[in-house]
Amino acid sequence: MLAIDWGSSSFRAWHLNAAGDILAKLSTQRGILSFQGQGFADYLQAHCGPWLAQSATVIMAGMVGSRNGWQEVPYLPCPAGAEDITAALTSLHSELHPNLQLVPGLQYAGHNGLMDVMRGEETQIIGALQLTEMNEALLCLPGTHSKWAQVEYGSITAFSTFFSGELFALLTKHSSLAGVCDIQVHDEPAFLLGLEQAADIRGLSHLLFSPRAAVVTGQMRPQQAGSYLSGLIIGAEIQGARRALIEPGLLSADKPLLLVGSEVLTQRYQQALAFYQLPCRTISGEQAVLAGLYRLATGQ
Amino acid sequence: MLAIDWGSSSFRAWHLNAAGDILAKLSTQRGILSFQGQGFADYLQAHCGPWLAQSATVIMAGMVGSRNGWQEVPYLPCPAGAEDITAALTSLHSELHPNLQLVPGLQYAGHNGLMDVMRGEETQIIGALQLTEMNEALLCLPGTHSKWAQVEYGSITAFSTFFSGELFALLTKHSSLAGVCDIQVHDEPAFLLGLEQAADIRGLSHLLFSPRAAVVTGQMRPQQAGSYLSGLIIGAEIQGARRALIEPGLLSADKPLLLVGSEVLTQRYQQALAFYQLPCRTISGEQAVLAGLYRLATGQ
Repeated sequence: MLAIDWGSSSFRAWHLNAAGDILAKLSTQRGILSFQGQGFADYLQAHCGPWLAQSATVIMAGMVGSRNGWQEVPYLPCPAGAEDITAALTSLHSELHPNLQLVPGLQYAGHNGLMDVMRGEETQIIGALQLTEMNEALLCLPGTHSKWAQVEYGSITAFSTFFSGELFALLTKHSSLAGVCDIQVHDEPAFLLGLEQAADIRGLSHLLFSPRAAVVTGQMRPQQAGSYLSGLIIGAEIQGARRALIEPGLLSADKPLLLVGSEVLTQRYQQALAFYQLPCRTISGEQAVLAGLYRLATGQ
Repeated sequence: MLAIDWGSSSFRAWHLNAAGDILAKLSTQRGILSFQGQGFADYLQAHCGPWLAQSATVIMAGMVGSRNGWQEVPYLPCPAGAEDITAALTSLHSELHPNLQLVPGLQYAGHNGLMDVMRGEETQIIGALQLTEMNEALLCLPGTHSKWAQVEYGSITAFSTFFSGELFALLTKHSSLAGVCDIQVHDEPAFLLGLEQAADIRGLSHLLFSPRAAVVTGQMRPQQAGSYLSGLIIGAEIQGARRALIEPGLLSADKPLLLVGSEVLTQRYQQALAFYQLPCRTISGEQAVLAGLYRLATGQ
């Protein structure tokens, strides 16, 4: 079996045997945004040819199933569990392989009637539940567009997206904060100050100006302002999610928030969650997506 | 007298007689960011030479007094009224003119200990108070970095900045929202929906993803998403300012919020303030800055 996580900015493939053991894996920076909508089959043949030939099933999750990907797969509505997603796997017709399956993303209509969407994270969530043997949980998947998801009876019942990763990148690359925020170093006290200030009732739009004001008045150095901004943005996300999703007593040491993602990002979120006294358990995003792909393809 | 408002991205000059009547005015796009820190005197001589020769005083407000401007003028701490600002006018030594005065910006340390700053808006505020003959007011100055200021006994006692204008520009130019938000048209219902949604307890970081989710799921067209995003950002600003600054009964038809700015921007904010049932009175930003410069230079 060939399991693939093909996102906007990265490509990851695992060649698995029938028991799910990893025989080989490949990771590149060729996310779907680098393809301009074509050349997916050629890329797969060139880099995964032998594995394709040896695999009865190829399963792919992530933005590869979006409008700008290989083939658009409609979003599946919530609530949706592993069985629902498996039933909605979509065959991709290609001469490359007789059994190419795309995992659908999910959509969720909140009480405000507006849709939220995910593509790829549903597979990580299914995998995280599998790895932890849980069927009730609150999960946080930090990233470009962080996702917070609620799982009940093994189904994803609701989720909310936060713009955190993209907002931080935008501000530190293209805004008037770029010149006052140095993001090469991590300054712990400044990060913690950002987490503390994130509770300001004036909200994030006010807070985003504060690194600039602090630097021009000499209150902060640029090396501090970058970490402070990171604390503001991660803090605004966690506090927003907490207000909406975390009733008192929902999380405990026995029933922690599941934090799923890369090592660097989950370390920062762990620190922030500890600051707000929210218990969490960290799960590798790579292990989660792999477990999810295997579960969705095999039912195991 | 020559009165000048020299900001980041624009230059405005008025030649006034002793009574404050406008003899001539000039407006260009040569904000201080286009100068790379030099050439200010040459520009003024080339474009305002005859007025310089006829004026006993030249007064300049705005980013021209910042680190990246002609000469840095320290921020004056709040509370500060017209007399305090006049007393802190800083002479700029130049062969161009014997009496060149720079208006200082203001800084304000909130209860959280972090500084906020303004440069140029203090002059508009002083002018707005002059034009309305008020010495107690709450003011909103929408813009790249919107300012909300409290005035008591004629002094600016506190203010808060919001990143609204820059955030909207960043998101619609450089982010993943650029492709899904058309900002060429104004869609009124979508703008109002944004104002309504701005109250979501998950906060702005969550809301910023919603235009994208609404467009990819077909709930909204890009022509709606741009106005919806504008409503979200302006709404988040007004609600944040309201939570912090507007106690029930503070504003009334007799004592409205003073809204100071350009026609296009104040129209949008007027609509938003009406949506939230906050009474306001609009004052032209150009008239306000001119009245402020005259007041600060002459004491009248």
